[in-house]
Amino acid sequence: MSTVDFGAFIAELATQSGQAILPFFRAHHATEDKSLGGVFDPVTEADRAGENVMRHLIKRSFPAHGVLGEEFGNENVDAEYVWVLDPIDGTRAFISGIPVWGTLIGLTRDGVPVYGMMHQPFTGERYSGDGRQARYEGPNGPRVLRTRQITNLGEATLMTTSPGLFKGAEAEAYARVESQVRLPRYGCDCYAYCMLAAGHVDLVIEAGLKPYDIVALIPIIEGAGGIVTSWDGGSAAGGGTVIAAGNKTLHQAALSLLAG
Amino acid sequence: MSTVDFGAFIAELATQSGQAILPFFRAHHATEDKSLGGVFDPVTEADRAGENVMRHLIKRSFPAHGVLGEEFGNENVDAEYVWVLDPIDGTRAFISGIPVWGTLIGLTRDGVPVYGMMHQPFTGERYSGDGRQARYEGPNGPRVLRTRQITNLGEATLMTTSPGLFKGAEAEAYARVESQVRLPRYGCDCYAYCMLAAGHVDLVIEAGLKPYDIVALIPIIEGAGGIVTSWDGGSAAGGGTVIAAGNKTLHQAALSLLAG
Repeated sequence: MSTVDFGAFIAELATQSGQAILPFFRAHHATEDKSLGGVFDPVTEADRAGENVMRHLIKRSFPAHGVLGEEFGNENVDAEYVWVLDPIDGTRAFISGIPVWGTLIGLTRDGVPVYGMMHQPFTGERYSGDGRQARYEGPNGPRVLRTRQITNLGEATLMTTSPGLFKGAEAEAYARVESQVRLPRYGCDCYAYCMLAAGHVDLVIEAGLKPYDIVALIPIIEGAGGIVTSWDGGSAAGGGTVIAAGNKTLHQAALSLLAG
Repeated sequence: MSTVDFGAFIAELATQSGQAILPFFRAHHATEDKSLGGVFDPVTEADRAGENVMRHLIKRSFPAHGVLGEEFGNENVDAEYVWVLDPIDGTRAFISGIPVWGTLIGLTRDGVPVYGMMHQPFTGERYSGDGRQARYEGPNGPRVLRTRQITNLGEATLMTTSPGLFKGAEAEAYARVESQVRLPRYGCDCYAYCMLAAGHVDLVIEAGLKPYDIVALIPIIEGAGGIVTSWDGGSAAGGGTVIAAGNKTLHQAALSLLAG
């Protein structure tokens, strides 16, 4: 089975998880702090409802597939196909009412990300890709996603969720890049990578990511012509430090600054 | 004429400015840097198109009214009624593709803000208020806006556009508050004040605002039960340093920290 055949199924995962999650957005909902005394890291009932419905659909349609999810852990992750799910990436935005969170649905084959979607159910936007192409569906109509070709840091827009999330040497490395760009922007999570794929911003730099924070985004970014790696230039699929750029020239320039 | 009668007219200003602005969002559009070597401050053609259509409607319907707008300056601002317009508040978000910018439409009577609307045409959201009540219209249905009653800084969510916009003593004052809150969030402009009016966040603290950045938001915040002043507790209508809070207790706690 070609990975292209999963498209309709992934669209159904997005539709059903969106229906499960959206009633909790801007409603009074329970939150908890799952970190122990660390950074505020809320988990909502919406997170669990969204992941539950996706796991149910996957088990019913593809019982041999594995699942790696934020809320309910790993199942059969040695399978050929593994779904990598984050029902609400950007929980801090979610609990603040701001529609820049998204549902991340990724699919790996033998460990390689082969398909991904970011779904924003409040705005009705879907960004998807398979590493060769990427597309957008939403209020301003369907279109093919292409990164933009700004190659000069001095003309670039850089996004990160918050500069306060970098610590020690990582904070210094990030600051070296931020000091060189035209416009730094804070406050998005997955949404930032989709703005890069859509050609609105040029760089996204983050640290401390989990695989489910990035796997779904890799085929979108690469399908749009962008490049995404760890800060040492290796695969981003394992999470950790991540840098995405609209093109190789800009990626290399930022990578050099991160290295010091 | 009671100010309540302006409601339908303001809705028309929002509809028509939205139609003028939205085609430029996420499209290739000209930007310029109107600051001279300072902070990046783009102005788009969308800004001008949106303000033009609003000025045209106001002159046709209320020729005796004044207009104070971001793009085309002051006209007849000694009139009893003055419209205070910012066609795209959050131009940095706008050029980055992120739908947390908004069109601000305010009305003052004898210098006092009496009606305001924030319109986000991409998401289809309208937040409006007249100082006594405030309401929301959008994808998740109409509702009355009410601030929430978190009175403890340690439980509060604080928003600001970017901590990098504060300089010197203002940066220190802001940092004193940020260090005490549960969750700081960056990246919104007018959208942050609407999240406060809607009860999703508790504090917004900014500096360097112009009157057209805040006048339209004051009747929304106050109509939702919130409080908005300058950092010294005076009127926020003149811009400058601004602090908005969901309730008086939290406002006082943050004001004390800002004072040092």
